[in-house]
Amino acid sequence: MEIGFIGLGNMGLPMAKNLLSAGHRLIVFNRMKEKAAGFQDASVQIAESPGEVASMAKIVLTMLADDNALRSVVYERGLSQAPSFLETLPQGGVHVSMSTVSVSLAKELAAVHALRGQAFVSAPVFGRPDAAATKNLGVVVAGEGTLIETLRPVFEALGHTTFVVGQEPYLANLFKIGGNFLIMGAIEALSEAFALVKKNGGDPEAFLKVVNAALFHSPLYENYGGMVLHERFEPSGFRLELGLKDVKLALEASEGARVPLPLGGLVKDRFLMALAFGLGQKDWSALGLLPLIEAGIKKP
Amino acid sequence: MEIGFIGLGNMGLPMAKNLLSAGHRLIVFNRMKEKAAGFQDASVQIAESPGEVASMAKIVLTMLADDNALRSVVYERGLSQAPSFLETLPQGGVHVSMSTVSVSLAKELAAVHALRGQAFVSAPVFGRPDAAATKNLGVVVAGEGTLIETLRPVFEALGHTTFVVGQEPYLANLFKIGGNFLIMGAIEALSEAFALVKKNGGDPEAFLKVVNAALFHSPLYENYGGMVLHERFEPSGFRLELGLKDVKLALEASEGARVPLPLGGLVKDRFLMALAFGLGQKDWSALGLLPLIEAGIKKP
Amino acid sequence: MEIGFIGLGNMGLPMAKNLLSAGHRLIVFNRMKEKAAGFQDASVQIAESPGEVASMAKIVLTMLADDNALRSVVYERGLSQAPSFLETLPQGGVHVSMSTVSVSLAKELAAVHALRGQAFVSAPVFGRPDAAATKNLGVVVAGEGTLIETLRPVFEALGHTTFVVGQEPYLANLFKIGGNFLIMGAIEALSEAFALVKKNGGDPEAFLKVVNAALFHSPLYENYGGMVLHERFEPSGFRLELGLKDVKLALEASEGARVPLPLGGLVKDRFLMALAFGLGQKDWSALGLLPLIEAGIKKP
Amino acid sequence: MEIGFIGLGNMGLPMAKNLLSAGHRLIVFNRMKEKAAGFQDASVQIAESPGEVASMAKIVLTMLADDNALRSVVYERGLSQAPSFLETLPQGGVHVSMSTVSVSLAKELAAVHALRGQAFVSAPVFGRPDAAATKNLGVVVAGEGTLIETLRPVFEALGHTTFVVGQEPYLANLFKIGGNFLIMGAIEALSEAFALVKKNGGDPEAFLKVVNAALFHSPLYENYGGMVLHERFEPSGFRLELGLKDVKLALEASEGARVPLPLGGLVKDRFLMALAFGLGQKDWSALGLLPLIEAGIKKP
Repeated sequence: MEIGFIGLGNMGLPMAKNLLSAGHRLIVFNRMKEKAAGFQDASVQIAESPGEVASMAKIVLTMLADDNALRSVVYERGLSQAPSFLETLPQGGVHVSMSTVSVSLAKELAAVHALRGQAFVSAPVFGRPDAAATKNLGVVVAGEGTLIETLRPVFEALGHTTFVVGQEPYLANLFKIGGNFLIMGAIEALSEAFALVKKNGGDPEAFLKVVNAALFHSPLYENYGGMVLHERFEPSGFRLELGLKDVKLALEASEGARVPLPLGGLVKDRFLMALAFGLGQKDWSALGLLPLIEAGIKKP
Repeated sequence: MEIGFIGLGNMGLPMAKNLLSAGHRLIVFNRMKEKAAGFQDASVQIAESPGEVASMAKIVLTMLADDNALRSVVYERGLSQAPSFLETLPQGGVHVSMSTVSVSLAKELAAVHALRGQAFVSAPVFGRPDAAATKNLGVVVAGEGTLIETLRPVFEALGHTTFVVGQEPYLANLFKIGGNFLIMGAIEALSEAFALVKKNGGDPEAFLKVVNAALFHSPLYENYGGMVLHERFEPSGFRLELGLKDVKLALEASEGARVPLPLGGLVKDRFLMALAFGLGQKDWSALGLLPLIEAGIKKP
Repeated sequence: MEIGFIGLGNMGLPMAKNLLSAGHRLIVFNRMKEKAAGFQDASVQIAESPGEVASMAKIVLTMLADDNALRSVVYERGLSQAPSFLETLPQGGVHVSMSTVSVSLAKELAAVHALRGQAFVSAPVFGRPDAAATKNLGVVVAGEGTLIETLRPVFEALGHTTFVVGQEPYLANLFKIGGNFLIMGAIEALSEAFALVKKNGGDPEAFLKVVNAALFHSPLYENYGGMVLHERFEPSGFRLELGLKDVKLALEASEGARVPLPLGGLVKDRFLMALAFGLGQKDWSALGLLPLIEAGIKKP
Repeated sequence: MEIGFIGLGNMGLPMAKNLLSAGHRLIVFNRMKEKAAGFQDASVQIAESPGEVASMAKIVLTMLADDNALRSVVYERGLSQAPSFLETLPQGGVHVSMSTVSVSLAKELAAVHALRGQAFVSAPVFGRPDAAATKNLGVVVAGEGTLIETLRPVFEALGHTTFVVGQEPYLANLFKIGGNFLIMGAIEALSEAFALVKKNGGDPEAFLKVVNAALFHSPLYENYGGMVLHERFEPSGFRLELGLKDVKLALEASEGARVPLPLGGLVKDRFLMALAFGLGQKDWSALGLLPLIEAGIKKP
């Protein structure tokens, strides 16, 4: 297929490469031009603006950092008032949003694209850059059913599993946000337990092995637990300052729906504390330092 | 071996039966006599008091509800001032404490037994009554090394794995308490996420499937998540009111060591709320109702 | 003086009347026209748009519900593209913002007005509609010093005290937001204590009297405590749903500055719970019901 | 009157002196003898044990650090098995407990004294050592009515006000515990707000003045706020490590009655963090440092 791809960051770049490897042709755009220019491939065209991408491809994937970046790609006109993505995407064109953005933005984009006869699919992914590189993402998809079937080869070029979770696009964002919330909850629980074990004279590494073997049997607990215990926070698979964004997405969805989320509030304060301590560029598992600091075991 | 066994409750009874099946002879005691009387087996002797058990067996396992029950078994004299467990256990005798009790009680018992030339081993277990019945417990053991080797056949008659975690008995209690704390953390995270998903129009069951397949791969998440979602709170594998005891054990250990434990405080309040709502006899996974109640989806 | 006044709600209307009583002439605007039309007074002119107010008065006070309402007043053009407030306010004109809005919006407005040679003063108020009616507001003012002196008669027509807190306008908003945060903290503390006392068999009303006489000596504790205890939540002096806005302003300021605010997170969840229970139109002191509900003393 | 007085610590000593000044005769006991020996006064007799005090006075006041100290005074026999306080207090004798102890201990002592025909009155006090020295305590009293009238001159020799709060002694403890809980809540709210104001560029001292003048009008807010802002943590009026005891009393009462107390949990973690940072000997207002530390403004 011919696919537009906007956003060639830590995640987007390896994803775009996998689409190429799978035989798709790409029209790409990245705000910082150098990244796009790196593609030396006959199957890749480099566009000058999001609007140009949308004028050249009926299917456009976007993979951006946050709500603001995605809004700007969709709505803003380019230099000399070149038309926007929303204006150039043809009737029947499909915007596949793979960024981790808010439930409310997903609802808004579904509405504005529909008004223009365009389709909107949400397909955020679980997985970090190394998983993106090795096609090991979990792709969570919501949108109109036949459309998703059309897009299935695209998703299969990107991840190990495609989870179809509903007709309304925002549901995919809700699941993604909820999933990240659970990871944060696990990091918080593990790191409080590590501080408890350590300051009571136990070995948190042995503790992690025992509880995972006896209770959780979860590679995620093993991985995140190990990152916290060995302070493997660099290179950062997912920067802590982006994690703040994600817990705020959960809190925003909780506010909109009037759902108290006390664990969410606790974790948000952890992010703020970590940022206040200068940990924003580390991997978000560096949250695990905070209970140790509060227990007087580590210095901030 | 000849083994004393004190405490034939939901957990103790199936454990004692497994010891019998493995060919051990038992001297048993239970505060409520009917339970002990139920054993119709030539290999079982029924004692009149903890002190009598300790006078007849060099190895005594205790499996009791909480600190108070264990203290009472160890220290209290019987009718007519019959000597206590602590008094009758011979020099070189071994007290194997399998209850979920506090770090501080484990330290105290290690000290008082040592003063009398007796040995003390902590061996609390992960697993609920069904796991006890099917030898599927995880046994977490701490104590003197050669002693643990001697006891290994006993533990292997009770569980699938024996985790040896240190020389000082209290470490096993610390790991057990920490492990339960992690389970509570997972229940809290899951149930907040379910409320968030549900009130935003998503299907929490589909959500659980996706996040477990994409992220956690954990049978524990699947089991507890399923219990919460289908409100399978009866029969109670582990009564909610006992869960309050366990979070208080974690908080006590955190207070002793000066380790803030905000997730622990949050979960303790969940237990109090659940008890105030009359849920004390349900399975502790009934904590998962609380975020739904707070979100106005369920009535208390 | 001739004063523009935009926003004739629960607070704005009595404030505008006090300005009239003090002998000022007003040019007023309200989004819903009926409110403005109610002024039958030769000293009052009714404008058709915020832009018209700003074209007619060198000093314009705004008193609006939230950031969105204030943004819309400042930036939006009227019908037929009639020029906006920002466009018509003359050079040297002064926008006095009395709404409880965010620190970030105050910074933004200070900047955009400065770019156009206009002045911006923040002057949010402490006090509820009854205090507005009786000139009993506390006016918290920040802005350029000589300007504030010029405006002093205006503030003195509105409140009992004018607190000048700095040169940078946003500081007044920060103080107002922080003050409201403290009120919420007091409501939370009082209502948890009431639930504790009541369910332990004590009389929370006697408790309030004793602790206020022995410790706090605070009319605010007496008033809010009494409202909670006697459930005087109607008529609503300050609607609970607006309180959610205010705690979010505190949280936004805490996020911007990376300051964990755990009490803020706790209170925000209280607001969400109260809204989920249908209490949004009650006075915000109705938050005090929640600890009683969680303790099983009241039904939601 | 002839009054027994047990416990001559920071609070007890100035209280005993005020009783002397009011013309009462005292029989005193203190665990560390030197303190008692300091009384060079013909109206003071120094006893050898709590039991001796109780054998010599029909009214005995106790002022001790915590539940353990009070239990030990009441129940323990002295050297050579000298009889205990409980054994020697005559029928009709009165134990007036002025310590800040638990609701459950107050209930227990009311019961055990009643069994022996003795009376029990709870009369904990609000106020710090300087208030004790200047007769400025608030005395919170609960017990049998005519008895309290008899004791009134005693209480009036100690404090500015005697608050009679009920017939059941534990109610006085409940009010005292609830009052201390409110103080902690105010310290937490103030210090979070200070961190918020400071890191956003405001002056927390000006903030305190404004909000107290506009909202709280509370000398307690002024005092505690000032202590936090000027870090006046020494000399310690009330040691932080004793504050931990007090929040645990509130939490114990909340657990007994099944009342979630989230602010209590938050504050308890503050105490643990402060103790982990080595602040245990400072005044408990040193809790106010913690939000500044978490915000990266101060080092622990």
